[in-house]
Amino acid sequence: MSYRIEKDFLGEKKVPSEAFYGIQTMRAIENFPITGVTIHIELITALAEVKKATALANMDTHMLPRRIGEQLVAAAEEVRQGGLLDQFIVDSIQGGAGTSINMNMNEVLANRTLELMGEEKGHYFHCNPNNHVNMSQSTNDVIPTAIKIAAFRLTEQLLIAMKTLQAAIARKEIEFDDVIKMGRTHLQDAVPIRMGQEFGAYARVIDRDIKRITQASQGLLSVNMGATAVGTGLNAKPAYVESVMQHLKEQTGLPIELAEHLVDATQNMDAYTELSAALKVCAVNLSKICNDIRLMASGPRVGLGEIKLPPRQPGSSIMPGKVNPVMAEVVNQVAFQVIGNDHTICLACEAGQFELNVMGPVIAFNLLQSLKIMRNAAGVFERFAVEGMEADRERCKAYVEQSFGIVTALNPHLGYEVAAQLVKEAVRTGLSLKELILEKQLLTPEEIEEILNPIQMTTPGIAGERLLQPTD
Amino acid sequence: MSYRIEKDFLGEKKVPSEAFYGIQTMRAIENFPITGVTIHIELITALAEVKKATALANMDTHMLPRRIGEQLVAAAEEVRQGGLLDQFIVDSIQGGAGTSINMNMNEVLANRTLELMGEEKGHYFHCNPNNHVNMSQSTNDVIPTAIKIAAFRLTEQLLIAMKTLQAAIARKEIEFDDVIKMGRTHLQDAVPIRMGQEFGAYARVIDRDIKRITQASQGLLSVNMGATAVGTGLNAKPAYVESVMQHLKEQTGLPIELAEHLVDATQNMDAYTELSAALKVCAVNLSKICNDIRLMASGPRVGLGEIKLPPRQPGSSIMPGKVNPVMAEVVNQVAFQVIGNDHTICLACEAGQFELNVMGPVIAFNLLQSLKIMRNAAGVFERFAVEGMEADRERCKAYVEQSFGIVTALNPHLGYEVAAQLVKEAVRTGLSLKELILEKQLLTPEEIEEILNPIQMTTPGIAGERLLQPTD
Amino acid sequence: MSYRIEKDFLGEKKVPSEAFYGIQTMRAIENFPITGVTIHIELITALAEVKKATALANMDTHMLPRRIGEQLVAAAEEVRQGGLLDQFIVDSIQGGAGTSINMNMNEVLANRTLELMGEEKGHYFHCNPNNHVNMSQSTNDVIPTAIKIAAFRLTEQLLIAMKTLQAAIARKEIEFDDVIKMGRTHLQDAVPIRMGQEFGAYARVIDRDIKRITQASQGLLSVNMGATAVGTGLNAKPAYVESVMQHLKEQTGLPIELAEHLVDATQNMDAYTELSAALKVCAVNLSKICNDIRLMASGPRVGLGEIKLPPRQPGSSIMPGKVNPVMAEVVNQVAFQVIGNDHTICLACEAGQFELNVMGPVIAFNLLQSLKIMRNAAGVFERFAVEGMEADRERCKAYVEQSFGIVTALNPHLGYEVAAQLVKEAVRTGLSLKELILEKQLLTPEEIEEILNPIQMTTPGIAGERLLQPTD
Amino acid sequence: MSYRIEKDFLGEKKVPSEAFYGIQTMRAIENFPITGVTIHIELITALAEVKKATALANMDTHMLPRRIGEQLVAAAEEVRQGGLLDQFIVDSIQGGAGTSINMNMNEVLANRTLELMGEEKGHYFHCNPNNHVNMSQSTNDVIPTAIKIAAFRLTEQLLIAMKTLQAAIARKEIEFDDVIKMGRTHLQDAVPIRMGQEFGAYARVIDRDIKRITQASQGLLSVNMGATAVGTGLNAKPAYVESVMQHLKEQTGLPIELAEHLVDATQNMDAYTELSAALKVCAVNLSKICNDIRLMASGPRVGLGEIKLPPRQPGSSIMPGKVNPVMAEVVNQVAFQVIGNDHTICLACEAGQFELNVMGPVIAFNLLQSLKIMRNAAGVFERFAVEGMEADRERCKAYVEQSFGIVTALNPHLGYEVAAQLVKEAVRTGLSLKELILEKQLLTPEEIEEILNPIQMTTPGIAGERLLQPTD
Repeated sequence: MSYRIEKDFLGEKKVPSEAFYGIQTMRAIENFPITGVTIHIELITALAEVKKATALANMDTHMLPRRIGEQLVAAAEEVRQGGLLDQFIVDSIQGGAGTSINMNMNEVLANRTLELMGEEKGHYFHCNPNNHVNMSQSTNDVIPTAIKIAAFRLTEQLLIAMKTLQAAIARKEIEFDDVIKMGRTHLQDAVPIRMGQEFGAYARVIDRDIKRITQASQGLLSVNMGATAVGTGLNAKPAYVESVMQHLKEQTGLPIELAEHLVDATQNMDAYTELSAALKVCAVNLSKICNDIRLMASGPRVGLGEIKLPPRQPGSSIMPGKVNPVMAEVVNQVAFQVIGNDHTICLACEAGQFELNVMGPVIAFNLLQSLKIMRNAAGVFERFAVEGMEADRERCKAYVEQSFGIVTALNPHLGYEVAAQLVKEAVRTGLSLKELILEKQLLTPEEIEEILNPIQMTTPGIAGERLLQPTD
Repeated sequence: MSYRIEKDFLGEKKVPSEAFYGIQTMRAIENFPITGVTIHIELITALAEVKKATALANMDTHMLPRRIGEQLVAAAEEVRQGGLLDQFIVDSIQGGAGTSINMNMNEVLANRTLELMGEEKGHYFHCNPNNHVNMSQSTNDVIPTAIKIAAFRLTEQLLIAMKTLQAAIARKEIEFDDVIKMGRTHLQDAVPIRMGQEFGAYARVIDRDIKRITQASQGLLSVNMGATAVGTGLNAKPAYVESVMQHLKEQTGLPIELAEHLVDATQNMDAYTELSAALKVCAVNLSKICNDIRLMASGPRVGLGEIKLPPRQPGSSIMPGKVNPVMAEVVNQVAFQVIGNDHTICLACEAGQFELNVMGPVIAFNLLQSLKIMRNAAGVFERFAVEGMEADRERCKAYVEQSFGIVTALNPHLGYEVAAQLVKEAVRTGLSLKELILEKQLLTPEEIEEILNPIQMTTPGIAGERLLQPTD
Repeated sequence: MSYRIEKDFLGEKKVPSEAFYGIQTMRAIENFPITGVTIHIELITALAEVKKATALANMDTHMLPRRIGEQLVAAAEEVRQGGLLDQFIVDSIQGGAGTSINMNMNEVLANRTLELMGEEKGHYFHCNPNNHVNMSQSTNDVIPTAIKIAAFRLTEQLLIAMKTLQAAIARKEIEFDDVIKMGRTHLQDAVPIRMGQEFGAYARVIDRDIKRITQASQGLLSVNMGATAVGTGLNAKPAYVESVMQHLKEQTGLPIELAEHLVDATQNMDAYTELSAALKVCAVNLSKICNDIRLMASGPRVGLGEIKLPPRQPGSSIMPGKVNPVMAEVVNQVAFQVIGNDHTICLACEAGQFELNVMGPVIAFNLLQSLKIMRNAAGVFERFAVEGMEADRERCKAYVEQSFGIVTALNPHLGYEVAAQLVKEAVRTGLSLKELILEKQLLTPEEIEEILNPIQMTTPGIAGERLLQPTD
Repeated sequence: MSYRIEKDFLGEKKVPSEAFYGIQTMRAIENFPITGVTIHIELITALAEVKKATALANMDTHMLPRRIGEQLVAAAEEVRQGGLLDQFIVDSIQGGAGTSINMNMNEVLANRTLELMGEEKGHYFHCNPNNHVNMSQSTNDVIPTAIKIAAFRLTEQLLIAMKTLQAAIARKEIEFDDVIKMGRTHLQDAVPIRMGQEFGAYARVIDRDIKRITQASQGLLSVNMGATAVGTGLNAKPAYVESVMQHLKEQTGLPIELAEHLVDATQNMDAYTELSAALKVCAVNLSKICNDIRLMASGPRVGLGEIKLPPRQPGSSIMPGKVNPVMAEVVNQVAFQVIGNDHTICLACEAGQFELNVMGPVIAFNLLQSLKIMRNAAGVFERFAVEGMEADRERCKAYVEQSFGIVTALNPHLGYEVAAQLVKEAVRTGLSLKELILEKQLLTPEEIEEILNPIQMTTPGIAGERLLQPTD
């Protein structure tokens, strides 16, 4: 392989002749062979957008010569559209608060610009990664800005997937509205409920999650462009800041605003912890829902068997005909990953010191992953599990008839203690509650009919209320 | 000791004659000798309020005879005001989703009501814990409602403490506005900043935390009274539900509303995870701020020594005269506790199944603790650390003069590479940057003076901008 | 109330005349009104033991006058036996790495010694909290040593409870050895298993937990007495160190050893993280077991109903006769608390800096709580849930007969695909597997009998192996 | 693209003609587009080893015809050596407990075997993924076994890296043994210490981590081959089990043993939680060490500046000459990732139910990642940070001279209160401790010299002990 020699203030290094990246990327590769996973493509794309906006702003403010700037804009646009992707080789977990991500981008854009200008790679006199590409910027403003843009876009996608999922569950609320079944508390038979009510509960908690995530993502729209190194704005002209924000809004189509206090916006990571926390709350809810669904789908013969999930794949390499609730299981696992990622993000955010949080790379790695896997899981769960889910109405009905849960409706009429004794006696004798009540002449058959009506039990009120004497 | 015998459907048990609690409390004490810590007093108080409201509503709807109801209201009011506190003896961590908390309250109120009615304790025919005190209710609606009221009140107190802390920090922002010091990124000397800017950043992130906690606490105002066992409202008359909500609002003075979907509100715990997550985000921020403050206060002789904290207590049993930043340290520890508690809360919330989350007790135990310790820590931190904190202006100024961080201002004039070489040479030779620049005739003394102005470096813009040639 | 005036180098403070604690405790009370929970009694007791050992060693090495030392030893012994407990009033979460705990003890012992010497409280000339009680010590050696002793003793108690639990489960392994039931994977019917095998699995994982906790507790036996402030041993004579270790071993009866490297032992908290991690691993296992048990006990009518738990308390304030698996639920909650505590402990341990981890108080608070609640929960779970648990043999047997899981045994004879088709057809037609096999003449009735034998399926091997042709 | 049609009991699907994977892999790809990251190569390799061993054992026991078995062994060996890697396309997070990983392997091996046999892909009559490749196996035994093998091998590599790091730190212990510096507690000046002692503490805690990880990895050597679906061994002949274990030991060269109780070994995941917990404990320690190192390396001008790290890369895109402690920062981030992963692993392990934990894929994903990134980070941290680290002896010495920490040595001679007053007075007057002591005639110049000797202060004992009067 042939090489060119590049220099920085720490010395020289060989760089493959073909490479668009340069010496600082080479150093990063040597220093950080950690995960083997390069940074999320959404972050690269967003950073390219930021770089395009800065180049435009630096031209607007007459800092960057047009002959360089115009080619630089073209190069940034190329990367934004997915070009040169194989040139972004630094590891997702890296020291240096994202300096290596930024320099990888600065070097790739500088060399691509040089190429467009008809110059050779590495001839940074004509277009320099630091002086030209990074003009008016610091890692500490462009990287957080790019992370926020990438995270906001993924949040938008996640929200679409969540809304689709929510709508599918809400359709089940309607579809299952007349499926009467036993409610369960403590996994013990409780009182009757309609399956539609259960799915209504799922739909509502997801609806709140959508609101929470939407709300929590707003902090991403406040960026610190122009903050430069520590938020004081050293080396960034006010006119540049105004211009770059304008270009960024146009480029991204997002309602991004400049943070009110740039020192704050540079050192504090709460926009990330806030969003990750909202994702975690949602993960907890999704996991609970999937646990319920897996329990309801348990069987086919010796489980609860109240619902049937669409079969998606053979469930065993050894047990013929076995089908597992794999779509729910994968959501559980995604939830666990998101909750663990939130933990990592919190640890990293707590570790910030003074003007900067240097743990940005691991934060971005985890936050963007959480957003992506949750979006993906919500999508397939909706399509492959919720959509085709069916209730076993017969079995649900039979359960209600078998259980003692309906005894609760007797409380207002017979009192808790008498009702409790009836249950004990029914268990002991094998007689039904109705038989026992009649035998003991506690109620008439008509009264029993009126009180022990499962469907009515699923709506508010006292069954057989008219039989009760009002008090003073 | 003398005893009375009480019965339930599982059998008989001896209860101390003097006790207001009864058989089910006795069973809970035997079953759950776990933490040795009884439930938070705020939860007891809130539950008494709920019980008072239900008694009033049950009288309104002619379910509960007035001769019982009026004494029951008096008994509940007594407990609400802190009476009979020693009768609430069940453990904070308990099986049963709070049934034991609820029954402890039901039994105490029943026996106190009996006493007020002139009856003997244990004569539940006249006032029964289940039939009268718990009328129209289930553990599954009154306990979550009480937890929410307790948590909301503690949140209000926390917010007051946070706002006081925020205001104190904001005063330091003004007081330290002219303290110029070295900014630090990666714990390495960066560029100058004003200490007021740093405290401005702290003030703003706490301000956002206040907003987040406020927002996250809104879910607590939606309660599931009338849900009874599983949210369907079995045995709760609509008129009762309307009445109990009215009384609850009046009793508590809080803008509590009935949840839109009671099955949802009974099974989902997201109001707790949402609030706990907001507390956790705040804990991360407070811990970061305290870490900074401890670093700035490090010394007195061989640390950074940029600020001085009020001495609060001798810091060592062996090192004479040593004083430690104990108020910041305690905030760090509270933050760690809150973050760990959040973890417990999430695990417990994920473990809900079907119509109920039976892990309510451990959730309440942790959530209420988090709120209390954060409120307490914010208070003492404000009073004993922030209030009397002073900046060491001389030392901060000397640091700026010693450092090379100001070299960044040379970038637009000399370029990144030349500036980097100057730093290397200054380190090697011991010469100052100014001396080197003059020696190399890179800039005139006047230009140096204009560019290397630390105070100007703390505001946006390019020092010596007029010396630059605008580009095309 | 009457007061005495005490002084330290920060000034004066009023102390209640009756109080055995002094000025530094007063300061701590003012500074740290955090949890409202005072430190664990086990830690107070252990610290008293440490103080007794130091007093004896300081007399042995002729540093501490006998007339003081002997009374001091008596005072420490008194506290060790539970005396003066109400004098230990500092909060569990406090700044200062335990200085306030240590000074609370130093002051109480000094004043009790003064009393025993016939002097007045506060006349520290005769017996001084720092110079005499704390002689040769630092908070940084005595507090970690006391935490380790307290934690080790609680671990011993926990291990006893765990072994009792393990033995009870192992008895169920034998008792349920012949209960054939359907195994479940993915909550889906799998192949037959014996309930005894399941309890055997539980017994074995708990056995490993016992080994892990035992192993992890060994680090507690290595203490840093004589380390003083930073581990260098300044002001602690080697003869004192030798003597204090000897006395500590005798006092505690534990095989405590001096750490090999005292700087290491003073700054590193890995003995705590290691033990807490082992507790967490155990918590995960216990929670899984309790989840299984709650599922198996689900019902009574419309759940799995494979086991019956002893009824411990009425399970509902509204549903008569309902009984919940409260003993399993409380173990789940304890597990969640232990896992959350582990998180707090890790955060606190990571926050150590240089020669000391100042977050010791929150570590001790959580670690000792974890040990206690796990000990308590294991105890009641064994006595109130495992001991009286019964299998529903009939139901388990009926399940095996209803399910298709036995089809797996056909694989070696008919192949996976044919077997899978049989299941599909059985579901569609309602015919049994046997009927279908006969109808299709795939096997003879005798072969079917030999192959589809549920009991044999629960032991290794191929049912009907002799029917297979061996290959080349 | 051309396709072949494959079938399973759920229907038909098109598979690319070239593909070695088959219909079940296609289903998995459709169902689980989650992370975009395929499974760790170490797991694929280990699974190929397992498959090779099973094929050999199935031939030994005359279950698998040699003409198939021999080609199957060749195919498995090919994959073990890294062949056909692009055929393993299922996602790291997937439902189904690893069935999709197992079937991806079964299909690839079946088709490669067919090719070697001269048959066409998809003609599974000649070699079937389930009947031949998966013979005597279940996902539930081969996948855990492969995960354990992969994890054990990575642990071995991690331990090598950790030992190298430990040795490098131990060399610094020696190199820095004579560097006297100020010890710090609470970030406040404490008493003198030697830098070698600090590095000795680091070396020892890492040494314990090595022991803990070694110990925790032993559980990986116990595997459940022959357990098949639920641990009962259905369809696995004892002779096969014996043979497969023998082959597995030979193939892997590892001292793998068959678990004592296969039901236990199939359902319990504690081998993973145990190892992950040990990694987490280590992560906490490494993070603390890196925090110390970053503090000691802070500066260059206005930080502590006690050590110098080798410069690894320019530290800023804007601040010329800035170099950051990036190698320590990356270790912090890896530590945070490992701690978060541990959380995910615990959640997943707690979610096991009955005979199987279906969350295996997310456990493997996180556990193997933790092992790899820790191994990688330990390696580069040793080479690029520890190896070339230097102490700034002059600055450390100057610090000792400036500080008051040496006052502690006066305690035995003057008492804590007098010493504390000297410090206060020194701060107020600007005089040195020595000057004040002389002025007040508390000690003679010779006594001062003897007592206030910083180097002696770093070793156990009382400076100037001979000046003290022994007591009775």
